[in-house]
Amino acid sequence: MPQFLTLLPPDEARALLLSHLSNGTADSALLDSLLALGRVTAEDILAPHPLPEFPRSSMDGYAVRARDTFGASDSLPAYLTLIGEIPMGAPANLTLAPAQCASIHTGGMLPIHADAVVMLENTQTISGRGGSSDRSTEIEILRAVAVGENVIAVGEDVRAGQIVIPRGTLLREAEIGGLMALGITSLRVVRKPRVGLISSGDEVIEPNQPASAGQVRDVNAYTLSALVTRAGGEPVRYGIVRDDFSALQAIAQKALTECDAIIITAGSSASTRDMTADVIRSLGAPGVLVHGINTRPGKPTILGAADGKAAIGLPGNPVSALVNGYLFVVPVIEKLLGLNPRPRPTVNARLTVNLSSQAGREDWWPVKLTANRQPPTANHQPPTVNRQPPTANYEAEPIFGKSNLIFTLASADGLLKIPADATGLSVGEMVEVMLV
Amino acid sequence: MPQFLTLLPPDEARALLLSHLSNGTADSALLDSLLALGRVTAEDILAPHPLPEFPRSSMDGYAVRARDTFGASDSLPAYLTLIGEIPMGAPANLTLAPAQCASIHTGGMLPIHADAVVMLENTQTISGRGGSSDRSTEIEILRAVAVGENVIAVGEDVRAGQIVIPRGTLLREAEIGGLMALGITSLRVVRKPRVGLISSGDEVIEPNQPASAGQVRDVNAYTLSALVTRAGGEPVRYGIVRDDFSALQAIAQKALTECDAIIITAGSSASTRDMTADVIRSLGAPGVLVHGINTRPGKPTILGAADGKAAIGLPGNPVSALVNGYLFVVPVIEKLLGLNPRPRPTVNARLTVNLSSQAGREDWWPVKLTANRQPPTANHQPPTVNRQPPTANYEAEPIFGKSNLIFTLASADGLLKIPADATGLSVGEMVEVMLV
Repeated sequence: MPQFLTLLPPDEARALLLSHLSNGTADSALLDSLLALGRVTAEDILAPHPLPEFPRSSMDGYAVRARDTFGASDSLPAYLTLIGEIPMGAPANLTLAPAQCASIHTGGMLPIHADAVVMLENTQTISGRGGSSDRSTEIEILRAVAVGENVIAVGEDVRAGQIVIPRGTLLREAEIGGLMALGITSLRVVRKPRVGLISSGDEVIEPNQPASAGQVRDVNAYTLSALVTRAGGEPVRYGIVRDDFSALQAIAQKALTECDAIIITAGSSASTRDMTADVIRSLGAPGVLVHGINTRPGKPTILGAADGKAAIGLPGNPVSALVNGYLFVVPVIEKLLGLNPRPRPTVNARLTVNLSSQAGREDWWPVKLTANRQPPTANHQPPTVNRQPPTANYEAEPIFGKSNLIFTLASADGLLKIPADATGLSVGEMVEVMLV
Repeated sequence: MPQFLTLLPPDEARALLLSHLSNGTADSALLDSLLALGRVTAEDILAPHPLPEFPRSSMDGYAVRARDTFGASDSLPAYLTLIGEIPMGAPANLTLAPAQCASIHTGGMLPIHADAVVMLENTQTISGRGGSSDRSTEIEILRAVAVGENVIAVGEDVRAGQIVIPRGTLLREAEIGGLMALGITSLRVVRKPRVGLISSGDEVIEPNQPASAGQVRDVNAYTLSALVTRAGGEPVRYGIVRDDFSALQAIAQKALTECDAIIITAGSSASTRDMTADVIRSLGAPGVLVHGINTRPGKPTILGAADGKAAIGLPGNPVSALVNGYLFVVPVIEKLLGLNPRPRPTVNARLTVNLSSQAGREDWWPVKLTANRQPPTANHQPPTVNRQPPTANYEAEPIFGKSNLIFTLASADGLLKIPADATGLSVGEMVEVMLV
């Protein structure tokens, strides 16, 4: 049982695992755009037509022929004859002759021969200058406009055929709206990667069972189900397996066949962890890639691959399993989704205590964040930026616990990393916390 | 039409609106813990029993009576008789007499009279010292342990009756796992606040309709549906209403009756925006609270309340509507959920250009974030922290666009705020970007 022959740095271990996985799962599904929030595009989305599809006014005012306004000013206005109002939502059925204008609203379609819009604020209305026999209305133009001014030209926003949403994009509010703007009511999204979850340990029972002395309820299958779901995958639970090689091997083989990746959470003793490694070795080539990672928590984590699928062994300890889920399972799912890289949500905070760490080992501490009322003094950011409410600075208070209870993470807002080359972090130090 | 009599600062406007809403919606629902990811607890969750429920070993080793090890060292070991192995998942049916020990695994239950565990690494096994007639196994204890050492006592993690998840908590991976650890397979969660969405404008058509000249497809109902869903609410779409007061008033009244909050996105012209204000006034007291906010985009935003429900009027412009949705609709939903305050996901970045802004006005710019390869020079954080991959610094590049097309937000990773008291931000300045 070659345990911890080499302890790899987490980043190196992750890169090694990902290098054995294909980018993006093969198949995709056609989905109603309405239901696509949180899914990932399986192909580039092209604009079927330009936006806008007709020349639009970007102001409330008067559609004009720009040349009719040249030289116009408060002291020397231009006078244009109002020939009507452009209705919203209908074709502009007016044609401007020289020295004519038409009333137009924001978003309205420019009439024929109009090439600019004068803002309402730069005009004045004069009725029936020619006396009662003359019912025409003239508009005083107090400011000249250039051709195209206050107008959105056809295709100025989006050209026909342009890639508006690239493949591998996470669909958020704005993407959904963009699809609707183009009349794209369905699209191909990447199928959610299936992640098989296996719990092992003679002491582990289902949460809905009464626990007798010596037994503990399964936590990992459910924290990891939630993790997989949030990351865009589909969790498949295979239940709890006794500490028996052939039983574990059979379930793992089945799960690997039915899923895109599997996770085995081992029992808490060293022997069951080694059994997990043996099972992963038995699943196929290359088998175990990493056994032992230089991080805390998570040293016993096992990273493997078989036939291009990830097979991960996580410690039975619930905190260790979940933290290593964030570090290794989420990136696997994102790679299977073919998701384009995105910024990780973090929060800037000041550390409330000294944290020591073993040099050469990467530590991850659960921390509670509390809004920091005083203006910060240590991060040297411009005061204008520090006063932004949504980006207020926080205090990061590590959550200490003798045992690794899942509730230490339940009370945490995020994870603070102590890099391998640090022997600790100092009180008052500005740190960035990965939100969970 | 009293438009923009006063332009309130966004934070002040938001506080005024929220002050008219009750904290937490009245009713809640009993939900399977498995399905509770992303929901909010409607009541405090208490531990029905302590964790752990029995004294557990936190190490692989030997359960002992601590007093039997006092003074033990490499040079002067203590010798204990091994009386058996504690099975995982079963009651420890062994009783330690003086000078006896039992083999135990991590998580195993301590036998009777045992009060500490000696790590495997600090022991040696000696078989049959007394010759072939003596089959007993003795264990050499090379290090003394104190009472309770390497043991997790009953209730050390969680005491019976302790509040483990407070009311108003967003249920994430860790909370789900904590519920399972305690055997809590269902719990009361807050009902998703219903948010009614009404689009107005004669030029607006449904996304699945062909657009003829002068018409544009509805975007806001769908960006806001996604926004409401992501914020934990339930969107209810009431379709598109013509620019007609009584028609809009009737739909708004219906929506307000059926929902916890309503949002009307106005047509793009000033007249339809004022119609929205008149409709909100007609719904009940206090009616319009804020008409005109000192921000860009979003100056025409209307915040109102009727009978304790929020009634919000957003500009028809899709970017303006969505950005103001982040600023005003999300906080409304969070208040209706009774959600406890949480840190906002942000990312630290360096601005790639100068951004000017009108003093006194708060600007929100869509920005694209790209990972910043060079070690940053401007934020004065300790290098150990800057080398953290998940918290790498980014470059923030504002997305400029003449018109406010929704695709300018689709290509953005977040929103950058220019505070009201700033006349702009400088190239190279470190800023915090609110992720969207």
